[in-house]
Amino acid sequence: MIVPADVPLLRAARREPTPFTPIWLMRQAGRYMPEYRAIRARHGFLDLCKTPDAAAEVTLQPVDRLGVDGAILFADILLIVEPLGVGLEFAKGEGPVIHRPVRSVADAERLQPIDVDATLGYVFETVRIVTRALADRVPLIGFAGAPFTVASYVVEGGPSRDFLATKSFMYEEPAAWDRLMGILAGATARYLQGQIAAGARIVQLFDSWVGALAPADYRQFVAPYTRRVIDAIGTSAPVIHFGTGTSGLLAAMRDAGGDVIGLDWRVDLDEGWRIVGEGRGVQGNLDPAVLLARPSVIRERAADILRRAGGRPGHIFNLGHGVYQQTPVEHVKALVDIVHELSDRR
Amino acid sequence: MIVPADVPLLRAARREPTPFTPIWLMRQAGRYMPEYRAIRARHGFLDLCKTPDAAAEVTLQPVDRLGVDGAILFADILLIVEPLGVGLEFAKGEGPVIHRPVRSVADAERLQPIDVDATLGYVFETVRIVTRALADRVPLIGFAGAPFTVASYVVEGGPSRDFLATKSFMYEEPAAWDRLMGILAGATARYLQGQIAAGARIVQLFDSWVGALAPADYRQFVAPYTRRVIDAIGTSAPVIHFGTGTSGLLAAMRDAGGDVIGLDWRVDLDEGWRIVGEGRGVQGNLDPAVLLARPSVIRERAADILRRAGGRPGHIFNLGHGVYQQTPVEHVKALVDIVHELSDRR
Repeated sequence: MIVPADVPLLRAARREPTPFTPIWLMRQAGRYMPEYRAIRARHGFLDLCKTPDAAAEVTLQPVDRLGVDGAILFADILLIVEPLGVGLEFAKGEGPVIHRPVRSVADAERLQPIDVDATLGYVFETVRIVTRALADRVPLIGFAGAPFTVASYVVEGGPSRDFLATKSFMYEEPAAWDRLMGILAGATARYLQGQIAAGARIVQLFDSWVGALAPADYRQFVAPYTRRVIDAIGTSAPVIHFGTGTSGLLAAMRDAGGDVIGLDWRVDLDEGWRIVGEGRGVQGNLDPAVLLARPSVIRERAADILRRAGGRPGHIFNLGHGVYQQTPVEHVKALVDIVHELSDRR
Repeated sequence: MIVPADVPLLRAARREPTPFTPIWLMRQAGRYMPEYRAIRARHGFLDLCKTPDAAAEVTLQPVDRLGVDGAILFADILLIVEPLGVGLEFAKGEGPVIHRPVRSVADAERLQPIDVDATLGYVFETVRIVTRALADRVPLIGFAGAPFTVASYVVEGGPSRDFLATKSFMYEEPAAWDRLMGILAGATARYLQGQIAAGARIVQLFDSWVGALAPADYRQFVAPYTRRVIDAIGTSAPVIHFGTGTSGLLAAMRDAGGDVIGLDWRVDLDEGWRIVGEGRGVQGNLDPAVLLARPSVIRERAADILRRAGGRPGHIFNLGHGVYQQTPVEHVKALVDIVHELSDRR
């Protein structure tokens, strides 16, 4: 199967002109969609991730239903920590729990390098199934969590608001932090390389919670490891480097790497792109809460973003974060159509 | 009692040179301090706010203990909504609950203007007691919640992560949103004027959660009401305009008003000040999580902030948000001493 290099999403990632602005949505495969809920009724979350046929089906659902310009692999950023032996569990309705969080030097010393090929082969199999099914329609977007965001779960033991355990650990035990981040960076690089080898044409690195950090902390404790991951991808696929709450971190994130920098909604797109610089693309940046409003509001806000992008090559439309589960499917479909219509340059 | 206009905090707020960089800390009076916990053992939270002698004692505790350059009134940003009749309660260990949240046009129509003088006199009494006790040592900082942040509690019914009800309400019912925000803006202006009349020499407007918004939404749905509050203060006292997660909103917040713009830790101070512009002061911006680390880390991070401020008139040192309750008191004291020592220009 050949995916032409000139599909809009890949062209935009390389800052080449496109006939319209490509759009995909974080969590476009998810709970807001009845087809997804039907499959989830038969599979637990981790079970679904580990069943390649089902994960591939979920990955493909929004491509036909919404007309988006890319399929995003169905998986979870924490799959990579399962082989670390920290006791990962997806507790029903409560999100991920890590039963043996890493909080001390001794905890960090017990960690072993992650054998990605031996433990995450089911993800590569999903990528292969999806790539075959997509043929040349739209590219598959692979992804992984960035080392900081994954480490934050490993240290906190689950989701966090203030990341106090993570920050204390990095301030107080920099050598142990380096060991944890080094293991995650190495495994993440290998994991993304494996997805690309299996058929992903572009990858997104999710540093979703990095916006909790001061820029000085980001540069010292995070950027070197993120850079290691992105450097390892090299030119094998474009990399979208994404986080939320990052309006003050954009220059530092750009310096850490990525062909495209993801912008959340907390910055005007033109201002965010100015900070990132014309040498990179940007992705974003509609507040996902706008999708709860009536289509006229969605249209107004999408038009404002496209106006700020000004049709310059290198803009991938997306939300600033994932689709909320309360979102009406028809609103999501309306956004995709609005972006295609308003950005039509043919 | 006369507080000379040339105490460092007030001079800095007016961008006049100071012998050292003044510092105060959000939540400097709070649970991290044993003296505070001792008083809280005898008073419920709302009861403490409404007992002027006790609230004044709590306000004064950190002035002597820490050597900070300002006292911040002990109160809560939600006191102003009690007279709205929405059923405010401070539930033990769970934060504020609003039992009858405003979610519809009918809910908003039922709201009555708030008679600040008739219902919040106890706060003005606390201000008078504190002002007398402080004499000419340091100024009292009055404060109020900004209309958006207060409205978010009134709509959500309590704290929120994503503010979906608030955003949906403002998108879908702009006239009802205007009514709610108008009532809050009018009452907040009167409330701050009352604090200034009672002795507060400077005030901070807390728009703590405004960083959840896209700049376009901020300009349309928030800035006009914030401006109304700040314009009403006029030249009667300097205004510090504060929010968190606002790295992409700083220019819009500056345009809404304030002599000093509060920066949280998610932006480099020099970059934040560049956005705000030299015509305003800035306050901030140490990550409060740094106070959990050993004093050598605190010193390094404080020095970085002072270096970025470069001794320019108009910098008030503060955390980027409130002191966490797990913080050792001696670390807070160490920060105050470090800032005074490193910024000494005498």
